[in-house]
Amino acid sequence: MDISLFDCVSPLDYRYYGNDPRLLALLAPTVSEKAYISSELEVELAAVKVLARRGICPEGVVAEVARAIGEVTPEEVHEEDARIHHDTRAMVNCLRNRVSDDAKPFIHLCLTSFDVKDTALALRLKRATADAVVPELLKLESTLIALARRERETLQMGRTHGQHAVPITFGFAMAQYVSRLGGRIQAIQAAAEGLRGKISGAVGAYNASGIFFDDPMEFEREVLAELVLEPSPASTQIVEAEFVTDYMHALTSAFGVLANLADDMRNLQRTEIGEVGEAFGAEQVGSSTMPHKRNPWNFENVKSLWKVMVARMGTVYMDQVSEHQRDLTNSASQRFLPEVIVGLVNATQRLDRIMSKLVTDAARMRANFDMTGGMVAAEPAYILLAALGHPDAHEAIRQLTLDAQGEGQPLWEVLRHSEELKPYLERMTVEQVAMLQDPTRYLGASVAKTEWLCDLWEGRLGLG
Amino acid sequence: MDISLFDCVSPLDYRYYGNDPRLLALLAPTVSEKAYISSELEVELAAVKVLARRGICPEGVVAEVARAIGEVTPEEVHEEDARIHHDTRAMVNCLRNRVSDDAKPFIHLCLTSFDVKDTALALRLKRATADAVVPELLKLESTLIALARRERETLQMGRTHGQHAVPITFGFAMAQYVSRLGGRIQAIQAAAEGLRGKISGAVGAYNASGIFFDDPMEFEREVLAELVLEPSPASTQIVEAEFVTDYMHALTSAFGVLANLADDMRNLQRTEIGEVGEAFGAEQVGSSTMPHKRNPWNFENVKSLWKVMVARMGTVYMDQVSEHQRDLTNSASQRFLPEVIVGLVNATQRLDRIMSKLVTDAARMRANFDMTGGMVAAEPAYILLAALGHPDAHEAIRQLTLDAQGEGQPLWEVLRHSEELKPYLERMTVEQVAMLQDPTRYLGASVAKTEWLCDLWEGRLGLG
Amino acid sequence: MDISLFDCVSPLDYRYYGNDPRLLALLAPTVSEKAYISSELEVELAAVKVLARRGICPEGVVAEVARAIGEVTPEEVHEEDARIHHDTRAMVNCLRNRVSDDAKPFIHLCLTSFDVKDTALALRLKRATADAVVPELLKLESTLIALARRERETLQMGRTHGQHAVPITFGFAMAQYVSRLGGRIQAIQAAAEGLRGKISGAVGAYNASGIFFDDPMEFEREVLAELVLEPSPASTQIVEAEFVTDYMHALTSAFGVLANLADDMRNLQRTEIGEVGEAFGAEQVGSSTMPHKRNPWNFENVKSLWKVMVARMGTVYMDQVSEHQRDLTNSASQRFLPEVIVGLVNATQRLDRIMSKLVTDAARMRANFDMTGGMVAAEPAYILLAALGHPDAHEAIRQLTLDAQGEGQPLWEVLRHSEELKPYLERMTVEQVAMLQDPTRYLGASVAKTEWLCDLWEGRLGLG
Amino acid sequence: MDISLFDCVSPLDYRYYGNDPRLLALLAPTVSEKAYISSELEVELAAVKVLARRGICPEGVVAEVARAIGEVTPEEVHEEDARIHHDTRAMVNCLRNRVSDDAKPFIHLCLTSFDVKDTALALRLKRATADAVVPELLKLESTLIALARRERETLQMGRTHGQHAVPITFGFAMAQYVSRLGGRIQAIQAAAEGLRGKISGAVGAYNASGIFFDDPMEFEREVLAELVLEPSPASTQIVEAEFVTDYMHALTSAFGVLANLADDMRNLQRTEIGEVGEAFGAEQVGSSTMPHKRNPWNFENVKSLWKVMVARMGTVYMDQVSEHQRDLTNSASQRFLPEVIVGLVNATQRLDRIMSKLVTDAARMRANFDMTGGMVAAEPAYILLAALGHPDAHEAIRQLTLDAQGEGQPLWEVLRHSEELKPYLERMTVEQVAMLQDPTRYLGASVAKTEWLCDLWEGRLGLG
Repeated sequence: MDISLFDCVSPLDYRYYGNDPRLLALLAPTVSEKAYISSELEVELAAVKVLARRGICPEGVVAEVARAIGEVTPEEVHEEDARIHHDTRAMVNCLRNRVSDDAKPFIHLCLTSFDVKDTALALRLKRATADAVVPELLKLESTLIALARRERETLQMGRTHGQHAVPITFGFAMAQYVSRLGGRIQAIQAAAEGLRGKISGAVGAYNASGIFFDDPMEFEREVLAELVLEPSPASTQIVEAEFVTDYMHALTSAFGVLANLADDMRNLQRTEIGEVGEAFGAEQVGSSTMPHKRNPWNFENVKSLWKVMVARMGTVYMDQVSEHQRDLTNSASQRFLPEVIVGLVNATQRLDRIMSKLVTDAARMRANFDMTGGMVAAEPAYILLAALGHPDAHEAIRQLTLDAQGEGQPLWEVLRHSEELKPYLERMTVEQVAMLQDPTRYLGASVAKTEWLCDLWEGRLGLG
Repeated sequence: MDISLFDCVSPLDYRYYGNDPRLLALLAPTVSEKAYISSELEVELAAVKVLARRGICPEGVVAEVARAIGEVTPEEVHEEDARIHHDTRAMVNCLRNRVSDDAKPFIHLCLTSFDVKDTALALRLKRATADAVVPELLKLESTLIALARRERETLQMGRTHGQHAVPITFGFAMAQYVSRLGGRIQAIQAAAEGLRGKISGAVGAYNASGIFFDDPMEFEREVLAELVLEPSPASTQIVEAEFVTDYMHALTSAFGVLANLADDMRNLQRTEIGEVGEAFGAEQVGSSTMPHKRNPWNFENVKSLWKVMVARMGTVYMDQVSEHQRDLTNSASQRFLPEVIVGLVNATQRLDRIMSKLVTDAARMRANFDMTGGMVAAEPAYILLAALGHPDAHEAIRQLTLDAQGEGQPLWEVLRHSEELKPYLERMTVEQVAMLQDPTRYLGASVAKTEWLCDLWEGRLGLG
Repeated sequence: MDISLFDCVSPLDYRYYGNDPRLLALLAPTVSEKAYISSELEVELAAVKVLARRGICPEGVVAEVARAIGEVTPEEVHEEDARIHHDTRAMVNCLRNRVSDDAKPFIHLCLTSFDVKDTALALRLKRATADAVVPELLKLESTLIALARRERETLQMGRTHGQHAVPITFGFAMAQYVSRLGGRIQAIQAAAEGLRGKISGAVGAYNASGIFFDDPMEFEREVLAELVLEPSPASTQIVEAEFVTDYMHALTSAFGVLANLADDMRNLQRTEIGEVGEAFGAEQVGSSTMPHKRNPWNFENVKSLWKVMVARMGTVYMDQVSEHQRDLTNSASQRFLPEVIVGLVNATQRLDRIMSKLVTDAARMRANFDMTGGMVAAEPAYILLAALGHPDAHEAIRQLTLDAQGEGQPLWEVLRHSEELKPYLERMTVEQVAMLQDPTRYLGASVAKTEWLCDLWEGRLGLG
Repeated sequence: MDISLFDCVSPLDYRYYGNDPRLLALLAPTVSEKAYISSELEVELAAVKVLARRGICPEGVVAEVARAIGEVTPEEVHEEDARIHHDTRAMVNCLRNRVSDDAKPFIHLCLTSFDVKDTALALRLKRATADAVVPELLKLESTLIALARRERETLQMGRTHGQHAVPITFGFAMAQYVSRLGGRIQAIQAAAEGLRGKISGAVGAYNASGIFFDDPMEFEREVLAELVLEPSPASTQIVEAEFVTDYMHALTSAFGVLANLADDMRNLQRTEIGEVGEAFGAEQVGSSTMPHKRNPWNFENVKSLWKVMVARMGTVYMDQVSEHQRDLTNSASQRFLPEVIVGLVNATQRLDRIMSKLVTDAARMRANFDMTGGMVAAEPAYILLAALGHPDAHEAIRQLTLDAQGEGQPLWEVLRHSEELKPYLERMTVEQVAMLQDPTRYLGASVAKTEWLCDLWEGRLGLG
């Protein structure tokens, strides 16, 4: 059953994922409808394995089911679903149709739909994390580490409020993202590790499995172990919502870091700043009518996709509330969860692509630095005066900066001619005076911290 | 270019829309990627028509372009886009390739990408509204009106806080939704009517069209008139965000009414209440393990889809902020807007399907009514006492209800034996006493208001 | 009952409103707890007036109640509420305590709590809109109009993606906000006009009032008319949520326009751009450690408050869903609605204050304009070539811009030396060539549109 | 500086916190404006301590500052702020005014505003967590454990989709919340533990402290250690947003569990279900006009406050994005964070109050259980048939349930008369047959799991 890409309504399907063969190949095994069905079949197999091991069903059933789950097609499940309007039962029926009459009764025995569905969801999310989300984020992390190291000594003006503040290096600015992204990768890993399955029956009380087993919680543990999952402590019909909620939060907050990086990059590309640039293809068109333009559209795209995905947490939080042993109002909404993975991986790959070829313009960074005529020396000047006992250093320097601006003079010129401050200047060390004269020396620990952060995260994440 | 339905990640594409041939046929002409491209081509044609009318290009170009826009395929646009990474320019190139060299220069002349894109978006949203959203909502509205009229006299307990309050009829309860939904249909129509296009160039100042025309605003108006659209007053590169924001709000708030209706229906289906039911198909399975269950899954599905779509407004509001004459961070996000239409139309059709076959159980409604032993008479009793001058009627009746509960007596029994209240009871009319005795008479204007609301909305919406 | 400002947890109460005597005086009459209670008392009075007019209660009761509602204090209502845990009944009890025994029974007769509460809410929101929201927004609108007119001819580079695009004037940029804000003012007015009250009893069926009146809907209309309100068509215990939802949307989307304006202003203040500035007080401190800094903190504050308030719509949309004839889960949440008004008015006043003293730097705008060496002529060049029949004008100019950048030449220099383009240049008019030479002439309709927009909105809003 | 409670706009200030002396006393020390200022003063003291220890300032300064921070009043800080429009500098100035001229220069030396602010925020949030959030949640947890244990054997119908499913006990239903809430308490503790401070200067590069120290990162660590905090790895002007984002997520997702519990409780209180009830005070009024009503308003209030607070995460996620070394657009918004704590603690105390006095009605639970005439035996019947080799057990039982409903017979009656199923019934054990006859025996592991969960969480949380 095919659909024209051009009939799709989801921009993911027709543009950002379905239209990108590499991304499709990477993610379809875990995020697609196909994966939805096949992961459910895996849960059915896991259950049969344990039923056999415990002597409830003949050993031969396992082989039958193992073969059959490879044969059931999504097409037939959809057809059966169209007939009976129950997609799990449809999957079960299709599976039963492919095994012998002797095996049939043991399919789905003791299971309720959401034993299968919620366990399969945990399975898919964990696999998508291990196979795509984390590897792609680690690639980007490596790219950022390499960039931070390369630019660790490249002078850049540090900015707050969009205003010149005090000096940093561009590598230092990148190292912030190394660290924030590194932290989020760990958060995603931990949240994926925390995902849980359940085989506790219709309301979580093991009513069905309790018919056969004195230790239904142990039965649950064994079935899930087949899938390298653990049981949640207190499922009802469904796994407690918090595990998935935490996982979605981890993805969403990681996306926030990407959005921030993208925003910084597009701002540094403003015509008036021009400190970085996306490498442009020879045939690439910047604007349909303004042939001269080079727009930071990739960074803009990352920000835009973040705006799409961050809002989805509203739905996730609403899905925490499910009445009694569950209502079904989280069912359709839960189907949309993998879209966030797709958005995040798309943005990660996009950022990796452009950050790994990022063009930096050190001369422009220096020129921008010089725009404010050494005014950034105001901070060390005030601090040194204060440490030398000036009773109101902050105010004294604030006045001098107004004078410097008024006279169009570098701050240092005004400073060194100040009669009032002369005694303090004379007590400063040579290095301190040099710093006031040439604020490019006022770099703090920019370089060392950059190295420290890159080392730290390479170590923590096992990179490099 | 096809994609397997089972490779799709969007539940809309693989389940709720792409897998539903009727809904696909209804909506693909306005919400799909195909529609995205073809609507842009229509804008190109509209521009050429006015260029010709104003003598900028030869008349023959119009016919050429009119033919060509029917020939350009989404496939070739995607291919060109893959080459040049600019989807509007790709569409323009494909169109140019299909006309004569003489016509080529006039394609996209004076237009910027977002003249085309934002105008095409308004076009698609208006058409989707007129062709699908409003017609489907009107069907549901008619169904609700018929239901309200049918059940206008069916006694039901009115409930607040989930507690028995005072009597209504089930038709009256439905009439609330007739009115709320009617209001939202009008809101959607008004918001769609308010959608605007733009042909004002790269930053909204008519720089390009101003080269050719002294009256570029009039040129804009003429091009848009070809598409039955009006210009926004103050576009930059993009149409001011508020028109689409209002439209999305109208859709979202309409969805909220559907969610409320669905919630009411699934609550009335609780086993202990059992006042309404979805008609179940003979082959339909209620639960994969509990063969006896009849779950209100359609209503749950509507609530669930609402949870998905309501959160999208977060993105819409963020997209109001675009820097200077625009940044592009609303570009990817805007592509997701039609998904809300799909969700809303799916939910509307689903509700119409089940509401038109809704099974009501008047006997159960009456039995539920009787559960509280006439305690609802407390309100009219208190009011009548007060009107007759009792100095603290509310407190007097509150005590009696506690007595009635304590003694397991109907309120009327306790009331008529109260020595203190005797003088008041004696001054009541026969009808008033009858109402206290038989609170099913305490229906207020339930029936009349039901009729009034049905008439009102049939009139306003031109139904019936 | 006072609370220390410093014990408050709400930044509105301790900082943005409660700490601002002018804003407190403007808004407390409609948004405070005091206003909450007094507006409810007004509804009680309105009901008594109509009861008297219709002969249900003696005429003298009206005067009694009119006096009493001025005497009931919030303190006593809170005390009574602490005793009985029902804030409306508490207010009713306090009112009853202040009238004669003869009048007592007619207080709150036929009313349910939410007849009073929802009607009072509509009253407060309408008044806050008329007395504060709209007047303050109109002041800002006037300020923006004056600024747009003043700067209507001030050359500025138009920017998209943060990149130089084509020329505008700064007044034109401001006129966008004149128009967007004007539109939102109208939207707020319309939404406030649409707010509705209700006097339809416990479940909306006029059960109580129906005891006394054959025409309870007319009774409702009369009571509300006393408060210059109209009834909602289909209330249950509560007014249908959509009227308030629309109103909150109008406020929120207006805030979005302010956020966008603030974002633009703080970006234009970046050190490297420096086209505008906030006027700084002589004693004002820019940074606690960087005495030289002039941060756009007022604009940042507006953006930040927007982030706070825009998220509140999530709650508003959830409140559309209320079970049966209502559950109470919208009660606490509804109390927070006036906070959005406070946030919006605070931001509006702040913006008005700084925009009315905005410092613009026309020289810097011109210098920034010149940075790109006339590259903006690429658009008119391509369009003119196309109109003159060049078969692939966009590509030809795109190549020239690459050459110009490569050679560090202004585009015009490269253009006029192009052999290929010579024949086209020769066919251009003098004005057209002048425009390519001096792209500051490529202003389109910037100036005229600015005037047009200012006139338009002065007319629509009755300003000037 | 006092404000009338009745002038406040925040329902927290005038109703849910400021009007509740116990809650005010509990939370004001960490969430109020007073706490905001005093916690900043503590950071200033911590810095001076380390400056003295490292010999930058005289030892005596520490004592001076230690005394002075107890003297600075919020009033004077607000006054100074009104003068200079910079709240941190205002606090610094006030502190300087209270120390000797010799000490003055060392106040705030090497610190930037957000060294102080972000560190103080972490301090306040950690303390509020330790002093109020976790203790109050633990009280509720203990209450839930006691309730779960008390009701561990109380038969209740398990429900999914609001429909009868299979049996549980009410204690088992409560144990779900024991576990979910227990998990969230741990999540909050972990997130609070993860909060970080910073003393890294204006852009995070230790520019200022690097003037004095070769090891500015060690200096940072020492200052924060005075406050029992650790430094974040990669601050800029501000602490990386993720630590607070995770913390707010932990609070929000905990609130989701409370909302779910509240929803379940109010649903179980529906008149038709009536399995639980809030204990009502003797003087409490249920409804202003319906004296007989007992509304679950406390549970509704919890749900309503959750709707208010859950939406706030939208703001939190937006605040992850801050340009370059920071813009200030997270400043006002960050001030609102403690409101979520107040909302959560209020809801927790409220739930504890009502859950600890929850009235349960075991007879009603049993009566409700019996409503469906043993239909819940359908699940074990189908499973037993399947295990005994019936080829299509699910369908066979589904048909029987339809027959039973059609004939108005208990399922067991239809079952035992089925000729087709006779051979299977004969092969069942006595216990199995007894279970089909009396489905109250089909409790699964309800009781044991309840005990297990209570034990588990008492152990994990160190309760009991």
